[in-house]
Amino acid sequence: MGRWQPDSRGRLQEAALALYAERGFDQTTAAEIALRAGVTERTFFRHFADKREVLFGGSALLQEQIVAGVAGAPAADGPFDAVAQGLDAAATMLGEFRRDLSRQRHAVIAANPELRERERTKLADYAAAVAAALRQRGAGEPQATLVAEAGMTVLRVAIERWASGDDDRDLAVIMRDSMAELRAVAAGG
Amino acid sequence: MGRWQPDSRGRLQEAALALYAERGFDQTTAAEIALRAGVTERTFFRHFADKREVLFGGSALLQEQIVAGVAGAPAADGPFDAVAQGLDAAATMLGEFRRDLSRQRHAVIAANPELRERERTKLADYAAAVAAALRQRGAGEPQATLVAEAGMTVLRVAIERWASGDDDRDLAVIMRDSMAELRAVAAGG
Repeated sequence: MGRWQPDSRGRLQEAALALYAERGFDQTTAAEIALRAGVTERTFFRHFADKREVLFGGSALLQEQIVAGVAGAPAADGPFDAVAQGLDAAATMLGEFRRDLSRQRHAVIAANPELRERERTKLADYAAAVAAALRQRGAGEPQATLVAEAGMTVLRVAIERWASGDDDRDLAVIMRDSMAELRAVAAGG
Repeated sequence: MGRWQPDSRGRLQEAALALYAERGFDQTTAAEIALRAGVTERTFFRHFADKREVLFGGSALLQEQIVAGVAGAPAADGPFDAVAQGLDAAATMLGEFRRDLSRQRHAVIAANPELRERERTKLADYAAAVAAALRQRGAGEPQATLVAEAGMTVLRVAIERWASGDDDRDLAVIMRDSMAELRAVAAGG
């Protein structure tokens, strides 16, 4: 084992995203990522199961955070307000991630059909989990699914805007604003 | 060439869905579908490029119908009302498809990860096309994408309800009702 590296996980993410952007995801190996990050391959595999996990490693935790936000919303909140709490929780977690790395991550995923489908599947999983949390709060169907899916659309669109750099406000602000916009348009026509 | 068969396309669809349900999609060949439908393999390939097209063959036409509905909505209609016109157009086209075949189609897709991803990709394509049609009508971003995605969620959820047989109303009615429910919840909480 090499000497202990401060923040080797962060340097591995940075190195991986740079290599995926330069060579393409399929053409990059874990060994090359480790080399670029200045750590051993063994260190790479202590942090990530494989090179795909560099992109999707936080998904399970993010889903937990969103669902906890929905479940923890005040009992009097309707389903959209509860989902907004879930999105706030997501923004808190994701907003700590560097915006430039998030942009690189999105560009890598957009360029690779398999990764795009993985990303879609992940969002569909979040939506199913949120719908279940809304049903637990007493929402019926199809309401729970409709609101959960609409909320995950807001999540995706807000993250894309934030990562793109077109909108330099904080992720939490963009998320709330997108949610408010969807709701206003839905109410108005 | 065999003798002319009335509605051989319909019989091929029926045979294909039955075989996909019995054996699984991957284990079924075009030759077996043709045999079950009582036509030649050549007739199968006159109607469908491959066995996957039996499930997704109508997608391009459906997307056109939805976009035409959105584009043709009265100029004074807001984006949600315009998308509702697109969904009406979709319901008119899809409502002619037999509900039992639609249920079988959904079960086959649900059982196969590759087909599920294809279905998700198709819905993402519809949403992108609808968002473009909304921008043509003057909607900005992120509004156009948010409303388009919400509309495609309504489409998916309504079709699932209709195909499942849990809701025996016409597809157009279920679609309008789901849209109204989403909008009412969005306005209310």
